[in-house]
Amino acid sequence: MTEMIIDLNSDLGEGFGPWPMGDDEALLGIVSSANVACGFHAGDPSTMRRVCALAVAGGVAVGAHVGYRDLAGFGRRAIDVDAGTLADDVLYQLGALDAFARAAGDRVRYVKPHGALYNTAVHDEKQAGAIVAAIRSYDPGLPVMCLPGSRLLELAEKAGIPAVAEAFADRAYTPEGTLVSRKEPGSVLHDVDVIVERCVRMAAGEAISAVDGSPLKVSARSICVHGDTPGAVAIATKVRAGLDAAGVAVKPFGVG
Amino acid sequence: MTEMIIDLNSDLGEGFGPWPMGDDEALLGIVSSANVACGFHAGDPSTMRRVCALAVAGGVAVGAHVGYRDLAGFGRRAIDVDAGTLADDVLYQLGALDAFARAAGDRVRYVKPHGALYNTAVHDEKQAGAIVAAIRSYDPGLPVMCLPGSRLLELAEKAGIPAVAEAFADRAYTPEGTLVSRKEPGSVLHDVDVIVERCVRMAAGEAISAVDGSPLKVSARSICVHGDTPGAVAIATKVRAGLDAAGVAVKPFGVG
Amino acid sequence: MTEMIIDLNSDLGEGFGPWPMGDDEALLGIVSSANVACGFHAGDPSTMRRVCALAVAGGVAVGAHVGYRDLAGFGRRAIDVDAGTLADDVLYQLGALDAFARAAGDRVRYVKPHGALYNTAVHDEKQAGAIVAAIRSYDPGLPVMCLPGSRLLELAEKAGIPAVAEAFADRAYTPEGTLVSRKEPGSVLHDVDVIVERCVRMAAGEAISAVDGSPLKVSARSICVHGDTPGAVAIATKVRAGLDAAGVAVKPFGVG
Amino acid sequence: MTEMIIDLNSDLGEGFGPWPMGDDEALLGIVSSANVACGFHAGDPSTMRRVCALAVAGGVAVGAHVGYRDLAGFGRRAIDVDAGTLADDVLYQLGALDAFARAAGDRVRYVKPHGALYNTAVHDEKQAGAIVAAIRSYDPGLPVMCLPGSRLLELAEKAGIPAVAEAFADRAYTPEGTLVSRKEPGSVLHDVDVIVERCVRMAAGEAISAVDGSPLKVSARSICVHGDTPGAVAIATKVRAGLDAAGVAVKPFGVG
Repeated sequence: MTEMIIDLNSDLGEGFGPWPMGDDEALLGIVSSANVACGFHAGDPSTMRRVCALAVAGGVAVGAHVGYRDLAGFGRRAIDVDAGTLADDVLYQLGALDAFARAAGDRVRYVKPHGALYNTAVHDEKQAGAIVAAIRSYDPGLPVMCLPGSRLLELAEKAGIPAVAEAFADRAYTPEGTLVSRKEPGSVLHDVDVIVERCVRMAAGEAISAVDGSPLKVSARSICVHGDTPGAVAIATKVRAGLDAAGVAVKPFGVG
Repeated sequence: MTEMIIDLNSDLGEGFGPWPMGDDEALLGIVSSANVACGFHAGDPSTMRRVCALAVAGGVAVGAHVGYRDLAGFGRRAIDVDAGTLADDVLYQLGALDAFARAAGDRVRYVKPHGALYNTAVHDEKQAGAIVAAIRSYDPGLPVMCLPGSRLLELAEKAGIPAVAEAFADRAYTPEGTLVSRKEPGSVLHDVDVIVERCVRMAAGEAISAVDGSPLKVSARSICVHGDTPGAVAIATKVRAGLDAAGVAVKPFGVG
Repeated sequence: MTEMIIDLNSDLGEGFGPWPMGDDEALLGIVSSANVACGFHAGDPSTMRRVCALAVAGGVAVGAHVGYRDLAGFGRRAIDVDAGTLADDVLYQLGALDAFARAAGDRVRYVKPHGALYNTAVHDEKQAGAIVAAIRSYDPGLPVMCLPGSRLLELAEKAGIPAVAEAFADRAYTPEGTLVSRKEPGSVLHDVDVIVERCVRMAAGEAISAVDGSPLKVSARSICVHGDTPGAVAIATKVRAGLDAAGVAVKPFGVG
Repeated sequence: MTEMIIDLNSDLGEGFGPWPMGDDEALLGIVSSANVACGFHAGDPSTMRRVCALAVAGGVAVGAHVGYRDLAGFGRRAIDVDAGTLADDVLYQLGALDAFARAAGDRVRYVKPHGALYNTAVHDEKQAGAIVAAIRSYDPGLPVMCLPGSRLLELAEKAGIPAVAEAFADRAYTPEGTLVSRKEPGSVLHDVDVIVERCVRMAAGEAISAVDGSPLKVSARSICVHGDTPGAVAIATKVRAGLDAAGVAVKPFGVG
């Protein structure tokens, strides 16, 4: 019997200075990969240190959650920054987080763009290429995580950088395998049992139901769960429990 | 005959975004060690990349010029930040710069505090200790540069971190070997010939004249030259030419 | 019979961008004066607009809660900024908030320093003077709020600026009328009934008990209540109810 | 004989903290309107105070040069900020600058968007509307300056806000009266005599030559001159001298 394995990832360390956000400790007991904010859209150095220390101690992989330089907008506003500047901004964030990961005894294990940069990197050649260039100049063996079929993963593969596709636990999919836009009704799932079942199916390599009911196979080595609200933490907890109960091993991608 | 060796260091990469400062390229042709701003008091990521690339290509050692989080004040205002936060701020800057040094094919070779943080680290146990703690958590073999006799160098030595004493080319010294306060007349030297002669003497291990005319031996493995004005670059150029003419080898400290 | 009047003030609008802080709406139903953060230590423009609109609609006076330029440290770290720069920083914040107060149909009614700037302004001639200079250049009729006996209120009076002394609802006082240091045991009161009783006594002009039990008359035209935690909001609610029940009119100082 | 009048405007106060930019003093002797940066893309409070004081003393009108919150990018990168947030950001900057203009004895006389915000406001309904909303909430009588035919001026007029069209001294125009894109050859004029002659013609209400040689009448109450380089200052100086020699009165728009 083949072992079923999946990675669970979540955004962490999104506080800044006096302002906390989310429940980092709770999430670190649930996920296997932590997308840690690096100071540009969130994440002060002390938060970065704390989250990295907890993650490494708990066997959770540290990922650099790189974003636009935009604290006030939380990195959620697209910025038309040129590719060279963006590559440098990404490299800066990556190095800063790596210092904390190394101080904790490990190192940054992957890169994932945040917010508006994520959305732009899905389709924009220039900005996706900048992220790839930054990773390549630092460590071409460092994986990058994004949507399957995204421009970012395509360019990463071309550059020889490991491309990690992720799925979203609580998002509806079109029959073509893309996310249903958040503007459409039913784009976000709220039924915990449905969410858990989908996660188990994806981990098992089985088809889930697209928004029109047709079967859809989603190829993803990691599933993203949210943790920015108490409700989200509750859902993430059930997802993890459901995966455990189904015999799915939750581990960082690339491990065992 | 013993070879005379000295390191020349200067503050570089102090622009930010649209605002340049100093003549990085000219200085990189003069000094052997570059104190590169890391984004907290100056130094945007693109400037950091550019300066690191030029430095590494020219055999100039890259040092992390870490400062307070204070762009508007250029890191020149003392901030009563607690030790834990300061250590995290230093580690963040160190890691960020190291990414650019590594992308350029080398790595950060030393740490030197900037501006008000430098002045505070000379005497303040708490903040000096924070800098030491940050370096130790990243790489205990990474040297730290400051004034001889400073609290920072004392704590570094205790922690097993290489302590590098520096002298200032254009500052008057008291007979006790401390700097004459900038508030005193004659604290800053302006006669280029005198400055050059002092540098050669220090490199040769000979005594210079303290402010009262008494002979003073300054133990320093590096001499700091300024480059923030056209006049300063001209002086630095002459210092370098004078050292070359006197047969002093200008090299990064710790190198052959 | 003389009407008993007191002003209640509280710190509001202390969120920034994606990060909320405190319960502004609840507090605005309790206090008569809102110390609104102006963007330097907290308070993004949209938060400022929202709080000003609610305050003005509810008859709550808007005060400029000016702080050091230090988002990461929430303005709680003393910064050795020179007087000229500080005066300009204060004037900038004051003008920015006034725009929102005016857009809401009123204007900024007073200035109160925040955090470390407050503490410094209590004793430091230079920084207290900078705050006074800023107010004077904008509107010499604009009151400033601080501790009775503070350097800030002394300099304000000298400059002809209305000086408003405030008391703290939940802080113990020495027999001399100064605050018991937070480092001392018993410096912060937690018994709601005691806190409410003290507020009523202060509003009535009666003596309260100093930390050693001796009677103490605290001259204050405003009482500061906190609202940064759910517990603090609960206490503030009881303070207001207690004042109402005792027949004390809670109004902005300077009104009726 | 009709008096010929024109306003000359230029971007000023674009330094930040330790970094100067341009020659504010020289420009203030040339122009009649100063577009003063307000702290979001450039312009620290002390620079704002200094420029406002000099401008008011010299009879130069102070305009709020409002930009995106983007110091690192100097406000030159388009940001997809929502209209509500942008309106609040504009109002914040407007109020902050007005404090310095009032402290100098005058007040902000107009608003002009900077950099990428300017370009976006030329065609984008949402962001142009946000600028109009901000001005309206502060003072509906405050003029806004932009390109003739821009979305911003259209919306301003609809809202009853005075719309001031400006021309560019050194830019080529299409026969339709729009600017030749900077990507096209010949888009920027370098011949000082030609630039001066065009300015005099525009001030006199005469046609200039479009890029194809056809005559073009540019309706503008203000002409923008640049001052960010020594060469630009030299050109601006000659423009002013040429206007003076031709008997054109250089005055702030809206004045006599």
